[in-house]
Amino acid sequence: MNDNLVAERPTFVTHLECSLTGERYEADRLHGLSRAGRPLLVRYDLAAAGAALSRDALTGRETDLWRWRELLPVRHTANVVSLGEVETPLIPIPRAGGGRVLVKDEGRLPTGSFKARGLVMAVAMARELGVTRIAMPTNGNAGAALAAYATRAGIETIVLCPDDTPEVNVREIAMQGARVWRVNGLIDDCGAIVGQGAAEGRWFDFSTLKEPYRIEGKKTMGLELAAQLGWRLPKAIFYPTGGGTGLIGMWKAFDELEKLGWIGAERPRMYAVQAAGCAPIVRAFEAGEEHAARWEDAATVAAGIRVPRAVGDFLILRAVRESGGKALVVGDPAILRAVDDCARQDGLLLCPEGGATLAAYRQALRDGEVDEDEEVVLFNCATGLKYPMPEAPNALDRHKPIDFDAL
Amino acid sequence: MNDNLVAERPTFVTHLECSLTGERYEADRLHGLSRAGRPLLVRYDLAAAGAALSRDALTGRETDLWRWRELLPVRHTANVVSLGEVETPLIPIPRAGGGRVLVKDEGRLPTGSFKARGLVMAVAMARELGVTRIAMPTNGNAGAALAAYATRAGIETIVLCPDDTPEVNVREIAMQGARVWRVNGLIDDCGAIVGQGAAEGRWFDFSTLKEPYRIEGKKTMGLELAAQLGWRLPKAIFYPTGGGTGLIGMWKAFDELEKLGWIGAERPRMYAVQAAGCAPIVRAFEAGEEHAARWEDAATVAAGIRVPRAVGDFLILRAVRESGGKALVVGDPAILRAVDDCARQDGLLLCPEGGATLAAYRQALRDGEVDEDEEVVLFNCATGLKYPMPEAPNALDRHKPIDFDAL
Ligand SMILES: Cc1ncc(COP(=O)(O)O)c(C=O)c1O
Ligand SMILES: Cc1ncc(COP(=O)(O)O)c(C=O)c1O
Repeated sequence: MNDNLVAERPTFVTHLECSLTGERYEADRLHGLSRAGRPLLVRYDLAAAGAALSRDALTGRETDLWRWRELLPVRHTANVVSLGEVETPLIPIPRAGGGRVLVKDEGRLPTGSFKARGLVMAVAMARELGVTRIAMPTNGNAGAALAAYATRAGIETIVLCPDDTPEVNVREIAMQGARVWRVNGLIDDCGAIVGQGAAEGRWFDFSTLKEPYRIEGKKTMGLELAAQLGWRLPKAIFYPTGGGTGLIGMWKAFDELEKLGWIGAERPRMYAVQAAGCAPIVRAFEAGEEHAARWEDAATVAAGIRVPRAVGDFLILRAVRESGGKALVVGDPAILRAVDDCARQDGLLLCPEGGATLAAYRQALRDGEVDEDEEVVLFNCATGLKYPMPEAPNALDRHKPIDFDAL
Repeated sequence: MNDNLVAERPTFVTHLECSLTGERYEADRLHGLSRAGRPLLVRYDLAAAGAALSRDALTGRETDLWRWRELLPVRHTANVVSLGEVETPLIPIPRAGGGRVLVKDEGRLPTGSFKARGLVMAVAMARELGVTRIAMPTNGNAGAALAAYATRAGIETIVLCPDDTPEVNVREIAMQGARVWRVNGLIDDCGAIVGQGAAEGRWFDFSTLKEPYRIEGKKTMGLELAAQLGWRLPKAIFYPTGGGTGLIGMWKAFDELEKLGWIGAERPRMYAVQAAGCAPIVRAFEAGEEHAARWEDAATVAAGIRVPRAVGDFLILRAVRESGGKALVVGDPAILRAVDDCARQDGLLLCPEGGATLAAYRQALRDGEVDEDEEVVLFNCATGLKYPMPEAPNALDRHKPIDFDAL
């Protein structure tokens, strides 16, 4: 079968590091946030990793996420968990986007979203570190991925989500063996309850960036992109930004790839896309701030990016600024129009968060922020099938003569 | 980018052949059913294909469906259409299935089902042969795939489906640019209307097996399986059978692979799985008949296999018999239990049709028809996310003290 899941391969984690202070933490121990209350980043001996693994060797492996094993934190193959984390395709959308626009379709991952990347890694590490009970706040997709992998790993899971989370997500989480609760609040309200339980020692807190390994899983988006494009990167990346794990993860991936000597110093401009009804990162970006205040009364059709406050705010803002990109805001009508256009013109059904990136790209094109000759990657982070679609009311009575001209 | 989509590669179609009489038809012409009213099969110069393409060369290509180009009918790369037809993963389900059971998760394909395989090929050929208007009856998934690819290829599409087709499918079809109609009847009633319009020259009829190329696309399930397993095949395959394209296609694939010398003469036992409420193939199998009469009042939760009459009935029955397999029937309760167990125990959400294969496998195990040491592949033909799931009613009021022990 797939060698990536069964071969013992060397690993190169040296330690973890506070993303704010640089303080060092021991590897192979259970960690949450750093003492400064900020995310921990995993560090590797990349010189040794580069000696153990070449780009050619990588290219010969099966293309799923676990092929990056030497650049991932899991030490023992027995702790690897998998539901088939395929390499997601890059799909051109020549009509709704343009000739150089590629959609990375993350909806092909297990449970239908890119949350699988982060959670497969976090759950594998939880297993490795002996965790038996996990709780997590979620807007839906992350909880679905957690439920699936934790069930597979034999870990008990409690999931809390806002009470207006898309119904399909809530049901999916329950089906896949987690205990799920709807809470009358937003994701950070759910997070507060999870934090309280964690403080009481009831479970391990799996909130975005509060454990160090989801980011390592999300990092594979950047690694994969480089490999798919023949070890170069696109000119710009549009990423729908909630907690920002994916953007932070890709930025880290590019850094590691450069240290390995597999890519050069050039970077894509990173565009963090948010919705007009919840744009804390955009507000902080425009105000030139390092941190982002909570966004009150957050509301948008793109549930995945309805995140009023991000613990990794400064990491998102730094990456965006260093890259020469921007934080961009788009309204719900533009999001829905983008989803509609892409389906109707290019046959590709995006999720609203993916639609947000297309809407932002179009706006950036109009504003002269990107050029239509530039190769651009938009992240469609989940399958469009999880989201409400407009009704299609045509009915035909086969017992009456058919008016073929009307069909 | 992906070489499979841009490289010109040699093709080897010699002619088409009536599956019942063997009568020969010219390649590169538009065809429906044969003069005998039966499906046409595409024939290749496999000696020449084998000389042009080695297993090693294949292994070096990107793993999507279009890597099989030399064994597919599309002549000109310009006619290739794609939405990212990834190789679908094989996922073990050790708890709900057993140690040697693999699920081929076809829900990862564009539009969330294996119908993408057949339709990507049929639409590419329609484009190659100058078709501008297509109509099709569907239980849902096939229509969704047709809509997406036809839209992408700039071909107009009319889709008819039973009025109780899952809502998500109908909406998806409309979103992706097709005109879709609900008909008060079953899939063959829809097919009758499509046939009538085709006879009047209003459109080209894309019903299952009524055009020759869907089967060539579905054939890639068999090709892929052989490549993934290192050029051997499993002992048994469980396939949820409606029109049977996939089963017939895989059987054809194995035959072509043997002629290429890439596999030996051994074949998996093919199990055609149907639901108790619609089991025409099982009835014909058990009665020792060559053809299957229409099943009246068809009803099952597994909408994809609610096909009362299959134009390729004799091809399904022949493949099953030659392989030493069987046609098996399972009840809706067993289907739903299998879906539930697989999600709850192994974290993998199957569609009901996929659940039917697991239910059939379990029954076959109990009956001594398969041995638990035998490697078995179950086809999960669509993402479970497209289907209704039970409600998950837990609610938590964050304004009141949280009873953590109850979570
Ligand atoms: C579909 C979708 N897009 C985007 C996001 C935002 O991801 P991140 O937290 O990495 O910013 C989410 C998170 O829930 C999501 O589900
Ligand atoms: C999910 C699913 N499974 C199985 C089938 C049956 O496929 P076939 O027509 O190849 O027998 C269908 C067809 O609609 C389907 O949608």
